[in-house]
Amino acid sequence: MRVLVLGGDGFCGWPTSLYLSDRGHDVTILDNLSRRKIDVDLEVESLTPIVSVSDRIKAWREVSGREIGFVNVDLANEYDRLAALLRELRPDAIVHFAEQRAAPYSMRSAKTKRYTVDNNVRATHNLLTAIVDTGVEAAVVHLGTMGVYGYGWSGSAPIPEGYLTVKVPTPDGDLEREILHPANPGSVYHMTKTLDQLLFAFYAKNDGLRITDLHQGIVWGTQTPQTARDERLINRFDYDGDYGTVLNRFLMQSAIGHPLTVHGTGGQTRAFIHIKDTVRCIEIAIENPPQTGDKPLVLNQMTETHRVLDLAKLVSDITGAEIAYLPNPRREAEENDLAVRNDQFLALGLEPTTLSEGLLGEVTDIAGRYAHRADVRKIVARSVWRAGMETAPDLLTELPAREG
Amino acid sequence: MRVLVLGGDGFCGWPTSLYLSDRGHDVTILDNLSRRKIDVDLEVESLTPIVSVSDRIKAWREVSGREIGFVNVDLANEYDRLAALLRELRPDAIVHFAEQRAAPYSMRSAKTKRYTVDNNVRATHNLLTAIVDTGVEAAVVHLGTMGVYGYGWSGSAPIPEGYLTVKVPTPDGDLEREILHPANPGSVYHMTKTLDQLLFAFYAKNDGLRITDLHQGIVWGTQTPQTARDERLINRFDYDGDYGTVLNRFLMQSAIGHPLTVHGTGGQTRAFIHIKDTVRCIEIAIENPPQTGDKPLVLNQMTETHRVLDLAKLVSDITGAEIAYLPNPRREAEENDLAVRNDQFLALGLEPTTLSEGLLGEVTDIAGRYAHRADVRKIVARSVWRAGMETAPDLLTELPAREG
Repeated sequence: MRVLVLGGDGFCGWPTSLYLSDRGHDVTILDNLSRRKIDVDLEVESLTPIVSVSDRIKAWREVSGREIGFVNVDLANEYDRLAALLRELRPDAIVHFAEQRAAPYSMRSAKTKRYTVDNNVRATHNLLTAIVDTGVEAAVVHLGTMGVYGYGWSGSAPIPEGYLTVKVPTPDGDLEREILHPANPGSVYHMTKTLDQLLFAFYAKNDGLRITDLHQGIVWGTQTPQTARDERLINRFDYDGDYGTVLNRFLMQSAIGHPLTVHGTGGQTRAFIHIKDTVRCIEIAIENPPQTGDKPLVLNQMTETHRVLDLAKLVSDITGAEIAYLPNPRREAEENDLAVRNDQFLALGLEPTTLSEGLLGEVTDIAGRYAHRADVRKIVARSVWRAGMETAPDLLTELPAREG
Repeated sequence: MRVLVLGGDGFCGWPTSLYLSDRGHDVTILDNLSRRKIDVDLEVESLTPIVSVSDRIKAWREVSGREIGFVNVDLANEYDRLAALLRELRPDAIVHFAEQRAAPYSMRSAKTKRYTVDNNVRATHNLLTAIVDTGVEAAVVHLGTMGVYGYGWSGSAPIPEGYLTVKVPTPDGDLEREILHPANPGSVYHMTKTLDQLLFAFYAKNDGLRITDLHQGIVWGTQTPQTARDERLINRFDYDGDYGTVLNRFLMQSAIGHPLTVHGTGGQTRAFIHIKDTVRCIEIAIENPPQTGDKPLVLNQMTETHRVLDLAKLVSDITGAEIAYLPNPRREAEENDLAVRNDQFLALGLEPTTLSEGLLGEVTDIAGRYAHRADVRKIVARSVWRAGMETAPDLLTELPAREG
């Protein structure tokens, strides 16, 4: 299959590109390297030392004998180059990761709010328009987020896979209607994924585009069998207050002797998935597209749910790290329950990597190994959801001496 | 009240600005004159001869003694100027008309699809971000569209005012939940208004912004008592295939001896409102904003519903015009019923202008008077919802000799 991976240099995009290449697909990456450039602005770096995209691709060629193409195109701002690429490549599937994906970054300032909306909406809409415009037959697989659903909205009912059947009262009695699950985004970033859903629904209906939207949980882990084949193939690992995600941050914090930073009570329950399962889900999705005329297919790309505090305690139990309770910079419920349906992925063959099997390896292989690269001033989250909200001071200002 | 009218030079914006000024409000218009520029590209002109915005404002000063401010700012692309203006003006209310508003234009090409999404989403999001960023206390009144709801979705139940109470099945029985009415937009333009709804919901929740979203029906009529006070104040009248709206097009067609162009069977039922009621609704909305912390207030800004074919027959009965059935360039149901709730506007004092009282005056005063300005080659709709859909040839190529 010819697969175009938009955002193929990023945290999910890179291991996906390698996995699909390894599985025999003909992969081309489109990326404007915005994720690396945002790190420049934030004055942070991936904990793991990532090499340039060209060197990554060269390394993959050396270890696998396979070619991955790369074009540096800004999906949101270079429509004509996108359309030309589609005409030339005529991909069978397009995997769309090319959006600004950090909630804290999206709430950081007027500038980052505007960038997140502009970039994400334009990227998605340019893609959809270009597919219609060029007439290519590509199916679209988009990375959404569990955050489109919000938390605690449907009581004890598990979050369904995208659509919800509700009863609408009418003068003639209740009418059953299937609706897109109501949108309850918690940040500007999450909001952009709810906008994407409406774009997808329209282009599926009006133009018959085949679209799969994957509502992913929080990804943990770093490496896949492919990224582990050479150090130059290593995946990025974000630990800073904007881009670091909760479990990976705990692992890294424990590795450097930093307290585990829990925001609020830690009673927030969230969905999780290992990066190895992410790449497998993408393959399942490109192999099982909806039909022309179908509404977008929505799958929940997650395997487990956990309370944030329970994760902190789990990491603390393994590593002995302390837990620090910090003010919550987000506007969200202190506590919530969460159950999620992921039946379709399980039926299509996903075999989940469980937290229990993967956790300790991550601590030692990645977080421990690269702990010396951490900048401890970048760990505490500083982006707040509303002006004037409290944040914590830095809990460490230099790396403690390494033991052992 | 200090009122900033975004898009105040347009078809709804101009009469609203005059009305609010006449009612004693301190009005400033922000407009980038994009509507006039699109006419340049489409090689069409308003049937009515509209003068420049500066001459309009000068004429208003002469007839009313009142000042209206004007700034030429591109809301979608000049964020810093917008923020500076808000800081300087500190408006109490901001009326937001500044979006590309023609469904056919939004479906015309990849370029106009992209322009419509970019312009409309950026305009709305820039506004919301700038209000948060500057801390001004302004309430927002936005012009939405009845088209966000779609047609025929809820059976015999009338379309509610924005929100719908549904029953969600859970293991513990049905849960009652109030949801934003599911989005069922029929064009890229209508889709942008469904995106706006999600932006509003987020900024009301996260930042406490006070937002009213007015889902307007198809506007008919041209003049208000204010625009009628001097010929230089006349409102625009669009009759071309992209920007002309159904009833005004019929009126103009009958005035020049052109067949009334009905797309498909004419069985589409739509909601309507006279421009005089539009401006009154805006006043009601700015006087009755929601409270900080409320979800967006949604009002249906319409007064009557009619089948397109019935309107054609009504105009035909009055004027003797023929009816021409043309291929429908839109992807929509051939026929639909429509009932709409507008209780809140009626309760707040709206007194609807009925079709029966206003129709004949429009035919003679506006369409008849300016019929000589029509370009008959621009009447038939050419923008299609999907490539390859059929359109009709021009039904006339020159103006017939005027009678009487």
